[in-house]
Amino acid sequence: MDLSSTIRPTLLVNETICRNNIRRMAQKARLAHIQFRPHFKTHQNLTIGRWYRDEGIEKITVSSVLMAQKFAADGWNDITIAVPVNLREVSCINQIPQSVQLQLLLEDETTAQILDKKLERPVRIFIKIDTGYHRTGIPADDFDKIERVITAITHSQHLALTGILSHSGHTYNTSSPTQIEQIHHLAVKQMNRIKNRFNKHNLLISLGDTPAFSQIENLSGIDEMRPGNFVFYDLMQHQLGSCKKTNIAVLAVCPVVALHPQRNEVVIYGGGVHLSKEFLISSSGKHQYGHLALLTKNGWEHLPEENYLSRLSQEHGIAHISPATEKQIKAGDLLGIVPIHACMTANLLPDFHFIQA
Amino acid sequence: MDLSSTIRPTLLVNETICRNNIRRMAQKARLAHIQFRPHFKTHQNLTIGRWYRDEGIEKITVSSVLMAQKFAADGWNDITIAVPVNLREVSCINQIPQSVQLQLLLEDETTAQILDKKLERPVRIFIKIDTGYHRTGIPADDFDKIERVITAITHSQHLALTGILSHSGHTYNTSSPTQIEQIHHLAVKQMNRIKNRFNKHNLLISLGDTPAFSQIENLSGIDEMRPGNFVFYDLMQHQLGSCKKTNIAVLAVCPVVALHPQRNEVVIYGGGVHLSKEFLISSSGKHQYGHLALLTKNGWEHLPEENYLSRLSQEHGIAHISPATEKQIKAGDLLGIVPIHACMTANLLPDFHFIQA
Repeated sequence: MDLSSTIRPTLLVNETICRNNIRRMAQKARLAHIQFRPHFKTHQNLTIGRWYRDEGIEKITVSSVLMAQKFAADGWNDITIAVPVNLREVSCINQIPQSVQLQLLLEDETTAQILDKKLERPVRIFIKIDTGYHRTGIPADDFDKIERVITAITHSQHLALTGILSHSGHTYNTSSPTQIEQIHHLAVKQMNRIKNRFNKHNLLISLGDTPAFSQIENLSGIDEMRPGNFVFYDLMQHQLGSCKKTNIAVLAVCPVVALHPQRNEVVIYGGGVHLSKEFLISSSGKHQYGHLALLTKNGWEHLPEENYLSRLSQEHGIAHISPATEKQIKAGDLLGIVPIHACMTANLLPDFHFIQA
Repeated sequence: MDLSSTIRPTLLVNETICRNNIRRMAQKARLAHIQFRPHFKTHQNLTIGRWYRDEGIEKITVSSVLMAQKFAADGWNDITIAVPVNLREVSCINQIPQSVQLQLLLEDETTAQILDKKLERPVRIFIKIDTGYHRTGIPADDFDKIERVITAITHSQHLALTGILSHSGHTYNTSSPTQIEQIHHLAVKQMNRIKNRFNKHNLLISLGDTPAFSQIENLSGIDEMRPGNFVFYDLMQHQLGSCKKTNIAVLAVCPVVALHPQRNEVVIYGGGVHLSKEFLISSSGKHQYGHLALLTKNGWEHLPEENYLSRLSQEHGIAHISPATEKQIKAGDLLGIVPIHACMTANLLPDFHFIQA
């Protein structure tokens, strides 16, 4: 791979690893007879979108109206915007061609009524359910509230009820695969209780989070899955047990600008505006803004975990490196940073450099 | 102010507060007979750059070659790029018109030699000194190393030695104005020791950080000051004692998309990709990603600190609000978020909405 023209922080995307990650998840969905509606917020990239198409994927999830517009313009015509609908953007929603089947999220009846009045096109609605993450959604046991929203939808002119949707984001706060499994199966149970309670509406059940869908074998009881991060994976997923380090498909490469061997550090051009300020706490209590990797002929090689990004300023960062690693690095080289949270890093470094290996 | 067309997360910039912040700092520099070279990484904005020009400012600091190109194109012709020089970008440095006087940072002799070979234009050099922050620079007492770099510069073809430069970023880790003062005065002492040691080079002393230059009255002993954040200020600076909340010139406004009064929360469209993941820890140990403000006719009104942004996802966030505040908010409204670190938020929301008040 030729990185001679890479002069600033840049995200390498390994196509082979990405395509394998996509294929594995698509296969898992097919075997479980679950509709696969991957979340595109992780990559937000048209080329990678086409890799999904190559696997037969036709329905996608995004997290903003802007992303919906972008992928609609690239021929995607079945899109779920998986955040509570923003009433200030309805005119933009109206501008998305009617040939695109659009699913929006609602969680209260007043917003449903206002949305209906402002819409000039039909949309499908998922009711957002809170299965324990407590971020958004109606609590899974609040049948009265769910019923009020269903009523508002069925009485509306432009809204068609499609199903119930939840995101078990609390799988990210777990410390074992068993906990992830427990959270997932409880969510499935809660969602099915709602489906049965309102069975005449034939509600689809949609769930989505990368830890659960990477790690759990028994996926029965749902109709649709929406993981997104798995296309890249990252250190957070690795720590959760969702992937091996070799499944991580992205690496930020940053120019080395100074060496400080006396304190086992190198300075890189690459800061919070490139990598985001996400961090993990290591077993020894240290903030880690990324692990390190060295470039090879066709890809990269992960360095031992004593090498990590220890501090981030706006435009540059400090990497802690072992004396053995230090000998292999000089100013002007590119140092690889394995992202903590790939969605955030990819959003900040959108001009991907694709490699095959 | 009319925000009816503000449909997505947007940064409001109060021109009156900004201009006052600029005027106050420019005045301070003038009274102390110190050259004022403000850091433009905070705002990165041409309009705000012109507000500095209105105060007679002609020299600026930036933190990337890209920023230098941008401001050079807007007529700025004396620019310091205050990060260790990136050898992979020398061809871009060569493209900056020679009418622009350019200062670069060096901290070792090998990089000086390579840089000199690659350059096709003259540049001035500040030697980066580490006065205790331990991010970049030559330790202030390492006279041998400083001498080697000076020698490399004086033997070069394109490099002209201008001075020594330091950033006392460790003022951000203090808990009292006295500590900030101690750090600053120690840095001034260290820099003057270097200046005296190499007195035949007539080295300029350049220092820069907003906490010190906002809070310290006695600024003697330096030639140039480079604070940047003070143009906006933010909650980090407020916590450090650098400003009042009423000196904070920016507010991110985010659409409210859902209300959860039963747990004193509202959901906003506005996440880590808009606000950054910077946080402060409150006195009660809570992570705070921003404080809250309500919009008024001409600006905003800070809410009590029991109202704060408690969690951030990629595209949306959760604000903790008091019952009294909750009564004033409905879905579709704009909620104001006072940034933790304005430089990061401004970088993510560059399409500023300017207001006067």
